[in-house]
Amino acid sequence: MSQRPRVRHRIPAQTGYGFLLDRGQYLRVVTPTGAQVADLVAFGQHDLTHWLSNGRTFDYSGTIYLTQGHTLYSNRSEPMLTIVADDVGRHDFLYTACSQEMFCIQYGIRTPHPNCLDNLAQALAMYGVRSHMIPTPFNIFMHVDVLPTGQLQIHPPKAKPGDSIIFRAETDLVVAVSACSASVCNGGSCKPIDIEIIGPDSWVLGTK
Amino acid sequence: MSQRPRVRHRIPAQTGYGFLLDRGQYLRVVTPTGAQVADLVAFGQHDLTHWLSNGRTFDYSGTIYLTQGHTLYSNRSEPMLTIVADDVGRHDFLYTACSQEMFCIQYGIRTPHPNCLDNLAQALAMYGVRSHMIPTPFNIFMHVDVLPTGQLQIHPPKAKPGDSIIFRAETDLVVAVSACSASVCNGGSCKPIDIEIIGPDSWVLGTK
Repeated sequence: MSQRPRVRHRIPAQTGYGFLLDRGQYLRVVTPTGAQVADLVAFGQHDLTHWLSNGRTFDYSGTIYLTQGHTLYSNRSEPMLTIVADDVGRHDFLYTACSQEMFCIQYGIRTPHPNCLDNLAQALAMYGVRSHMIPTPFNIFMHVDVLPTGQLQIHPPKAKPGDSIIFRAETDLVVAVSACSASVCNGGSCKPIDIEIIGPDSWVLGTK
Repeated sequence: MSQRPRVRHRIPAQTGYGFLLDRGQYLRVVTPTGAQVADLVAFGQHDLTHWLSNGRTFDYSGTIYLTQGHTLYSNRSEPMLTIVADDVGRHDFLYTACSQEMFCIQYGIRTPHPNCLDNLAQALAMYGVRSHMIPTPFNIFMHVDVLPTGQLQIHPPKAKPGDSIIFRAETDLVVAVSACSASVCNGGSCKPIDIEIIGPDSWVLGTK
């Protein structure tokens, strides 16, 4: 996809970034250092009542582990993003974004702590998305195992430096990505995430 | 809890019912015939931007299989419902409510089909909840296994006739329950669900 228009953006550690992704464009999410999770959420660009739904996606894909070839669906059963390339093959779609309350309840932290829910909410505010509208993100590179008992185990990401995942937008979207702010799922430290917005194909083909 | 006020209600097959459940009240959900799933959702009675969150609940409980002793949390990390008794011990919190679109995509059904999303939306409309606000329900008695590969397998419920689960409301809630409308997860046929609203304790203790 080297001839297509690209926008590159570095998301600093423990922050978020919101942007528009039009149908046919591609989004590449890269962990430059490896072992860093990126929380991704999406809404319909023309109707914010369409939001990324893990439950719909689980139903249509028949699995909780999404990778190349799987499509992420909205609450209204519309395709939002298709994973067209995936260097890592293990991501999480069970955990909500870390939040100030989570850091308090799980770790006893009572002072302000960077967190993905606030990162996503701040990144999306200009598009009209409020914090309570944010659903469970697709947690790129987050490595969670579900044991036969149902118990959840969080491991460091399998991603190596430079590993990436590429999505194709199936409809016009508002997207936000947060460089995850909780050290436990990032191998002990919080690092930046790079994104690239590529295409769409029609910019090259001249059909738009 | 025999001396506490009770309200009993039968939810006919493939329909839903919405009601207020105050803090300290108990909700008992019964499958009179066995092998019938009931989708349950909840919102803050005084603030509908508080909604039942599987992702928060998974994080705080450390498991995807919730049973007696576990608390179901809101998107804002507030306890909503605690499971205080459970005859069955296996429920699902991964699948979204079945919907008209799901029946079309999964089964090719293009004519109107009863579905839990519409059941819940109709039951909640009078409380100000709109369809797009409905999160993944706690699917009582739904028996889903997650294989080590992540693959999801739906089995008939383990529930026998008369089996029930009892929740205590941890805050003032709007609740809706749908007698699940998809035969695949109900052992081949859709049946009614009974609910009882019991208490609260303070009605007996005279402390309210």
